[in-house]
Amino acid sequence: MEKVKVGVIGVTGYAGAELVRLLAMHPQVELVKVGARSAVGCRVDELFPGLAGIKLACSAADDSYAECDYVFLALPHGVSMEYLPQLIKAGARVIDLGADFRFSDAAVYERTYEAVHSAKDLLGMSVYGLTEYYRDAIRAAPIVGNPGCYPTAAILALRPLLAGGLVEKDGIIIDAKSGVSGAGRGLAQERLLAELNENFRAYKPVGHRHTAEINQYAGAEVAVTFTPHLLPVQRGILATCYLTLRPGVEVGDIVEAYAERYADEPFVHCHQPGVLPELRWAVGSNSCHLGFAVDRSLRRLIVVAVLDNLLKGAAGQAVQNMNVMAGFPETMGLPINAPIV
Amino acid sequence: MEKVKVGVIGVTGYAGAELVRLLAMHPQVELVKVGARSAVGCRVDELFPGLAGIKLACSAADDSYAECDYVFLALPHGVSMEYLPQLIKAGARVIDLGADFRFSDAAVYERTYEAVHSAKDLLGMSVYGLTEYYRDAIRAAPIVGNPGCYPTAAILALRPLLAGGLVEKDGIIIDAKSGVSGAGRGLAQERLLAELNENFRAYKPVGHRHTAEINQYAGAEVAVTFTPHLLPVQRGILATCYLTLRPGVEVGDIVEAYAERYADEPFVHCHQPGVLPELRWAVGSNSCHLGFAVDRSLRRLIVVAVLDNLLKGAAGQAVQNMNVMAGFPETMGLPINAPIV
Amino acid sequence: MEKVKVGVIGVTGYAGAELVRLLAMHPQVELVKVGARSAVGCRVDELFPGLAGIKLACSAADDSYAECDYVFLALPHGVSMEYLPQLIKAGARVIDLGADFRFSDAAVYERTYEAVHSAKDLLGMSVYGLTEYYRDAIRAAPIVGNPGCYPTAAILALRPLLAGGLVEKDGIIIDAKSGVSGAGRGLAQERLLAELNENFRAYKPVGHRHTAEINQYAGAEVAVTFTPHLLPVQRGILATCYLTLRPGVEVGDIVEAYAERYADEPFVHCHQPGVLPELRWAVGSNSCHLGFAVDRSLRRLIVVAVLDNLLKGAAGQAVQNMNVMAGFPETMGLPINAPIV
Amino acid sequence: MEKVKVGVIGVTGYAGAELVRLLAMHPQVELVKVGARSAVGCRVDELFPGLAGIKLACSAADDSYAECDYVFLALPHGVSMEYLPQLIKAGARVIDLGADFRFSDAAVYERTYEAVHSAKDLLGMSVYGLTEYYRDAIRAAPIVGNPGCYPTAAILALRPLLAGGLVEKDGIIIDAKSGVSGAGRGLAQERLLAELNENFRAYKPVGHRHTAEINQYAGAEVAVTFTPHLLPVQRGILATCYLTLRPGVEVGDIVEAYAERYADEPFVHCHQPGVLPELRWAVGSNSCHLGFAVDRSLRRLIVVAVLDNLLKGAAGQAVQNMNVMAGFPETMGLPINAPIV
Repeated sequence: MEKVKVGVIGVTGYAGAELVRLLAMHPQVELVKVGARSAVGCRVDELFPGLAGIKLACSAADDSYAECDYVFLALPHGVSMEYLPQLIKAGARVIDLGADFRFSDAAVYERTYEAVHSAKDLLGMSVYGLTEYYRDAIRAAPIVGNPGCYPTAAILALRPLLAGGLVEKDGIIIDAKSGVSGAGRGLAQERLLAELNENFRAYKPVGHRHTAEINQYAGAEVAVTFTPHLLPVQRGILATCYLTLRPGVEVGDIVEAYAERYADEPFVHCHQPGVLPELRWAVGSNSCHLGFAVDRSLRRLIVVAVLDNLLKGAAGQAVQNMNVMAGFPETMGLPINAPIV
Repeated sequence: MEKVKVGVIGVTGYAGAELVRLLAMHPQVELVKVGARSAVGCRVDELFPGLAGIKLACSAADDSYAECDYVFLALPHGVSMEYLPQLIKAGARVIDLGADFRFSDAAVYERTYEAVHSAKDLLGMSVYGLTEYYRDAIRAAPIVGNPGCYPTAAILALRPLLAGGLVEKDGIIIDAKSGVSGAGRGLAQERLLAELNENFRAYKPVGHRHTAEINQYAGAEVAVTFTPHLLPVQRGILATCYLTLRPGVEVGDIVEAYAERYADEPFVHCHQPGVLPELRWAVGSNSCHLGFAVDRSLRRLIVVAVLDNLLKGAAGQAVQNMNVMAGFPETMGLPINAPIV
Repeated sequence: MEKVKVGVIGVTGYAGAELVRLLAMHPQVELVKVGARSAVGCRVDELFPGLAGIKLACSAADDSYAECDYVFLALPHGVSMEYLPQLIKAGARVIDLGADFRFSDAAVYERTYEAVHSAKDLLGMSVYGLTEYYRDAIRAAPIVGNPGCYPTAAILALRPLLAGGLVEKDGIIIDAKSGVSGAGRGLAQERLLAELNENFRAYKPVGHRHTAEINQYAGAEVAVTFTPHLLPVQRGILATCYLTLRPGVEVGDIVEAYAERYADEPFVHCHQPGVLPELRWAVGSNSCHLGFAVDRSLRRLIVVAVLDNLLKGAAGQAVQNMNVMAGFPETMGLPINAPIV
Repeated sequence: MEKVKVGVIGVTGYAGAELVRLLAMHPQVELVKVGARSAVGCRVDELFPGLAGIKLACSAADDSYAECDYVFLALPHGVSMEYLPQLIKAGARVIDLGADFRFSDAAVYERTYEAVHSAKDLLGMSVYGLTEYYRDAIRAAPIVGNPGCYPTAAILALRPLLAGGLVEKDGIIIDAKSGVSGAGRGLAQERLLAELNENFRAYKPVGHRHTAEINQYAGAEVAVTFTPHLLPVQRGILATCYLTLRPGVEVGDIVEAYAERYADEPFVHCHQPGVLPELRWAVGSNSCHLGFAVDRSLRRLIVVAVLDNLLKGAAGQAVQNMNVMAGFPETMGLPINAPIV
């Protein structure tokens, strides 16, 4: 197989740098171009000494990426839509890690992000990049709107249950906890180690933008309560989802629903009832682990989903989508397993 | 004022060692005796070099503590009830940090802890030690059953709302997160730093014993869903409580309910709507901070409570209770403020 | 005893906030004024919700502090010297936590800090605030130049040995490790939790400014190699000092030298040979713990000193000095013991 | 190329589990057998849910490994020598991650580990597995004695300098700091997260067994002072080495010595003078980063080496050696780059 030529725009952030690391190890990828507004001319291994040997220098973000077969955008929402039209025109297929191309309906984007969508005409070419659910459409898509980290965890947990009618649609609560890489590299006193280490807090308990994305793709018409928290760890998301079982639904039905949906998925691992996955089972891998427990007396179902916010929640899933688009084996260049320690 | 003579049994655990530290600084306390089954003859400053200068050596736990006015028990549940009768007979007043004397009804204890209660006749002499609610009874109580760490957080958050009829009684969810000192000093591979650092996990999602204590003292007849998680930090509990507002209840009603109940409490701090307290606001202090947010479209109320599990959640509240019992100022020897870093 | 009236300038930094916390609990202090250039008008409990109940609002740093008996300056070096003359003129005694008044010889300051000293005439009124060594002079001093955090650890470790002629003066190496609160609250990408957590690094291996301070006060004419490192913890300094024993010096001589010097010091704890203190033995206390080991075959002496950089290394020692100046018991309001966890 | 058949004995420890993770991803390896005394019959993915999909069950350690071309031993010292003779007899080539086959002279082993060597006759067949220095001998070696984690860092830092005569041989100090995975999975109260988190300490300041290994392979006859410390992080070693420059040696000579020795090494990265590598530049990769600074006034050279103790310091270097032995590209299946976060 011939290697594909790949570019990444936005390499100074954590997701962009993680993309570079993954792509540099991918056996079928030639990383030919990296872009960063704030670091034009800087070499990757100078920006990040841990990426030793990657001597590519950053171009401007709006430079030509015409030589690329695939371009990844790791940019703040609102920025991708500026660059995307010219990339598409130049013939590249684009995987956008931001929010601009996640909703087919521009109105949902505009309401959620309180901004005008300037590339509405391209939304029809875009597919939501939750690989396990949109694989067939991704294969041919010119644009993939890669999911948010929290929605990836929540949707993988909820969708088989909601689609199967096993749980009530109202009263769903997602209490999610994320490592700090999810908060990005922007400077803020509240993100200093001295302020955040040995600390823990909820943030945006009402109206976090990922709520709309979860509601959109959860598998039924729902309006979830979604409360994210910040963990004093580097990576990882653990989402504790509280659901109500519909009358007559048994533990075995839940087991079966997950098994049926995910048995053949290389990156989704379902555990026995009562086994709740720990954060570290996923951190460092592109996998999502799912487990659940039931309190029969309250008909309460508690589902825990864990994943690595920079891998399955961002760069890893983006590469998984590129593998699908390019016809490579879906797991190529992506770790299924997490280090023990 | 004359100093009171105090003993602590169970000083090798975190709560017991914290009691020793607090009592050694207390201006009205003379620490005269410390006990530990596993360390008879060892000096405190040898067991814990950070407690430099406390040269008291450990007695056996079942030794005589007759010289003590007050005895604190920092022992596993089921053990306190063995020692308590002789302590009471010898004239000491006892503050038990374990679960044995938290329920006036022995049947609740026996069901919850799956064990026989061997000192049922003493339960009538015991008062639940949530100081803010049982202060008057504590003043004269021979025995105080000091609350669990999670229940202290949950009850302080829920009780003004439930007692005031502001929220629905069903569907209450408490998603709680605790630092590892809450898990104790017992050896377990899962508590090694290498296994727990950069990790996070739920545990006992159904049937944690503190559930019964919360239900008992929450201020109304409720059956909460309580899911504890383990944070990779030393100390602190953050409980995220999900409630449903009763029709017609407004943000201002919540503000008022908390203000009325806690305005004069030195160790409870209520924040403005939308301000959710962080773990570190409480860690190192005997304070509990409360904050909340409302999602009007879902009539959802989210209350966050934080406290230090070893202080307000254990040793600090125990000293607060002793202050009440001895007629000392309630805040004596107890930090209201937490270090910034 | 009457309470003294105290002010603190620079309360938005970690040392300043820690001073406020300590002084608010001090039984003989009335905290009457706090200053902060960047937060004029803000209340302390708004800046730091963990300092609940301290409702004092910040003045400008250059406001009048005439009502104060004692003023603490927690300011960057070079700034204290601007404010100090007027404070002295107004009759306050000043404890400066910065470097401006640590050297009696202005030339040493100017060389080390590459800046002009604008208050040279006040240097004669200033005493170096290492309490254990300059207690008598501190008692009457108008100005105390409170030591740096690293020098406090290093000098307490080295001085009995160098003054006693037990170790060689050349080849001394101090490999020191500090928690991140030592790096301050300034915004820097390298201090984000995501960059520093699970990380560790040396910085300024040659020419760190504390080197001059150590050389000045180590007890003999020395030129040490001093290499600081940044630990991914909140607080604490551990200094590993490498020395060469003079011929004929035995383990017992070292034990004796430390015992003689520090036996009566409430905040210095010397451990048995071979027992090396851990960081946590000191963190949260105003104590310094010292321990050592000897490799006889190489005549190598390894001394480990630990302390809390914000307490004995900054705010705690400053309060200790105020206690000495005011004639209060030296330990008043200061914790000798560290929490176990 | 045909795949090689590989076995790992000792998979329940961190190094063993890391070997399994690496080998499962290696494109030329078929992992056919895993062994663990304490977990016979358990599947790898049950022992470590993060190793999802590796369904191999553990054999007894002394079972036959005859089908294996290569066997890795991740066992405590003293145990490998029991199993090794039969493995060699059965035709396997063995990479031992323990200490039993690191010294060609049994007397050095016996003195250092205070134990009898029961397989002295096999020492002649063994090569020290520091790939960068013994590559040619490793290629054909029946047995490789894989280096210790600390020695790998120290020797890579010191050897070009000592071999080149650029530094004095006496007075060398190595102040090393390791993440807790280096301390293993054994149960010990001192390794509980609650005891070690936010903590830091030196251990075995005199006589740590790795001292002998460093002295043996440092490139000249030396007797270093080696003091290890335990960092509250998962992985990584940072060694700060203090050396004295020989008269006339300049910064440029150091640069050149490193460049000459390591320019073609894929896993050793030398930085510009004054740039000291951080722990995270290496953690997660099989690379070692080297940097240095010079204090000319004291002729002091400070070299900092960082690596991942479980990769270049253990399992990664073991796979690197297997690649050499099997004639695979040396970097096959091994990450050169570390994640940014």
